[in-house]
Amino acid sequence: MTRVRDLSEEQILERILPLLPRGSATLLGPGDDAAVLAAPDGRFVVSTDVLVEDRHFRARWSTGYDVGRRAAAQNLADIAAMGARPTALVTSLVVPGDTDVEWVTGLAKGLADGCSPVGAGAVGGDLASGPCLVVSVTVHGDLEGRDPVLRSGARPGDVVAHAGVQGWSAAGLALLEAGLVRAPLSPVPLEVGDDVVLEDAWERLVAAHLRPEPPLDAGVAAADAGATAMLDLSDGLLRDAGRIAAASGVRIDLDAGAFPADREALRSAARAVAVAAGMGDPGWGPGRADIDGVLDGWIFGGGEDHGLLATFPAGARLPEGWSAVGRVLAQDSAGGDGAGGAAGEGTAPAVTIGGEKPAVGPGWDHFRA
Amino acid sequence: MTRVRDLSEEQILERILPLLPRGSATLLGPGDDAAVLAAPDGRFVVSTDVLVEDRHFRARWSTGYDVGRRAAAQNLADIAAMGARPTALVTSLVVPGDTDVEWVTGLAKGLADGCSPVGAGAVGGDLASGPCLVVSVTVHGDLEGRDPVLRSGARPGDVVAHAGVQGWSAAGLALLEAGLVRAPLSPVPLEVGDDVVLEDAWERLVAAHLRPEPPLDAGVAAADAGATAMLDLSDGLLRDAGRIAAASGVRIDLDAGAFPADREALRSAARAVAVAAGMGDPGWGPGRADIDGVLDGWIFGGGEDHGLLATFPAGARLPEGWSAVGRVLAQDSAGGDGAGGAAGEGTAPAVTIGGEKPAVGPGWDHFRA
Repeated sequence: MTRVRDLSEEQILERILPLLPRGSATLLGPGDDAAVLAAPDGRFVVSTDVLVEDRHFRARWSTGYDVGRRAAAQNLADIAAMGARPTALVTSLVVPGDTDVEWVTGLAKGLADGCSPVGAGAVGGDLASGPCLVVSVTVHGDLEGRDPVLRSGARPGDVVAHAGVQGWSAAGLALLEAGLVRAPLSPVPLEVGDDVVLEDAWERLVAAHLRPEPPLDAGVAAADAGATAMLDLSDGLLRDAGRIAAASGVRIDLDAGAFPADREALRSAARAVAVAAGMGDPGWGPGRADIDGVLDGWIFGGGEDHGLLATFPAGARLPEGWSAVGRVLAQDSAGGDGAGGAAGEGTAPAVTIGGEKPAVGPGWDHFRA
Repeated sequence: MTRVRDLSEEQILERILPLLPRGSATLLGPGDDAAVLAAPDGRFVVSTDVLVEDRHFRARWSTGYDVGRRAAAQNLADIAAMGARPTALVTSLVVPGDTDVEWVTGLAKGLADGCSPVGAGAVGGDLASGPCLVVSVTVHGDLEGRDPVLRSGARPGDVVAHAGVQGWSAAGLALLEAGLVRAPLSPVPLEVGDDVVLEDAWERLVAAHLRPEPPLDAGVAAADAGATAMLDLSDGLLRDAGRIAAASGVRIDLDAGAFPADREALRSAARAVAVAAGMGDPGWGPGRADIDGVLDGWIFGGGEDHGLLATFPAGARLPEGWSAVGRVLAQDSAGGDGAGGAAGEGTAPAVTIGGEKPAVGPGWDHFRA
């Protein structure tokens, strides 16, 4: 094994640079004091996200490749959430000196595989040693003449819609924490762009946690379809929906039965995690585990899937990949059905589920504690 | 003292955001998934740099404000070195939970004070906890229709010129390490834009180390004056000149007597550091310390001043703030004066001083070890 400290920065860069995609908007790539990128409509979109070892990933579960995929995915999703096309990212990497150089080249391959499908480049970076792994990515995008879709544009009467998967990342993490699936899942693919086929359904959930795949094209499609507000789901559906509600001055009511396909995909994992956690036999008697409660926790509370949540004018035709999951209400309306829902006296909660205040019960954050 | 862990991320952002300058190119500032910036000529320049505690700064010497100033300065200098005007930066910050919130707000003020003089904005960021302080900044710039000035454009016959101070950062660090000046130097200025006046000459050198002030306007001026190559001096004059030489396929000969004003400013510190290091009485007998050797070490070997080094066609009028410090030679020429210099047999060194191969003697990296 070659460790980072055994090589000079130049030697490490010699191994990384050939792995990185150039990107179609790149006018000048790595190697000078700065890169130069095209911004054809005279504007660009920029966002930054940092991943820290033992906070955002665990090195015993995530390979360098996984961390690169995740770093790319969550940054690219921020660009998609503005209704823009990702063009290029730059990366600052802090690594302990005893890190295997393969971890670093794996990271570069993961960034490359995350960028390539959308034509984004990896155009620069910085490398330093430090006490733990830190990956900071800054990503750029092109609005192609569109107005950016902000969090603040939702209006009462709008439909709330979702693209991507929801709850998979939380389920994958729960499976890892319960020891039901082992990670790392597989070695770094040998070829950039390789398709890793995971046959096992639980492994697909773990993969969704380790290497999320945001619906990047859905952001531009939503903007073109007239989305009034949009964001990337990173901190859980309830919390992120609350951010649209707060920025737009509205309330959001989510459908209790939304995400039926995700529930189906997650059910077997929810059952297994509940049993492993000692919640009892899921099908039997008074000690019966609340599988639906676990599912609700993952669907409404789980973060890091990096799907997109948007609002569309009522009657708008939702683009491919988007499903209606709720509606926008006026801030002072007590409930969408006129029956008052859970609001009762005082301020109505900013986000409700089927008109009710969300129940944060057992199984909610239980498996993440 | 309020610690970072005592506040939520929202509460910390509430304290940081009002401190940050918006910037004249900012179309949409912080608060959404991404910021939107103007790129009037249809291109933008981007660079990233990371600072890690105990690698790039020491928390016992550098306040949060100092680190913010330094992070801004070294990033902005990368933009200037392309011949571009800085427009905006984004920052990822990793902090231990027991960090004083004042350190974080000080960092924001330092970033703001670094950005404001050039009209750049601080338009976004990310915040995470981690085992040590890490500050990753990505900075953007506007070429205003100019061609970027690369490292690869130097041609034999060009003049090598410099803007900024050289050797001050290395001298400041040596003064700190010898215990001759104490840091932190002063509290964070209460007002953004405050001018901290340091009366003591040695404190000015320490300030140059803790809060470098690159000659940001000199980059655009050099581009307009026809600079053929340019870079930011971060790793020492010899090493960085070698980068222009390598990228351009040329040799560079620096004048042995260059930087007279910097030598004058550094002489008293060099004498004091030499005495403190036990190099003997600087003025006396055979144990006499080699003050000029120490000065050469700082001038030719010292990094982190973030001045600019550029090449101009022979006969070009150097813009204000630039001084000639050497000349560009053909790769195969043995010496600029026809006398052969230090090249002798074999390959000529890429960078020479007065035609001689640089002597890396005592006093070179001695005080940094």
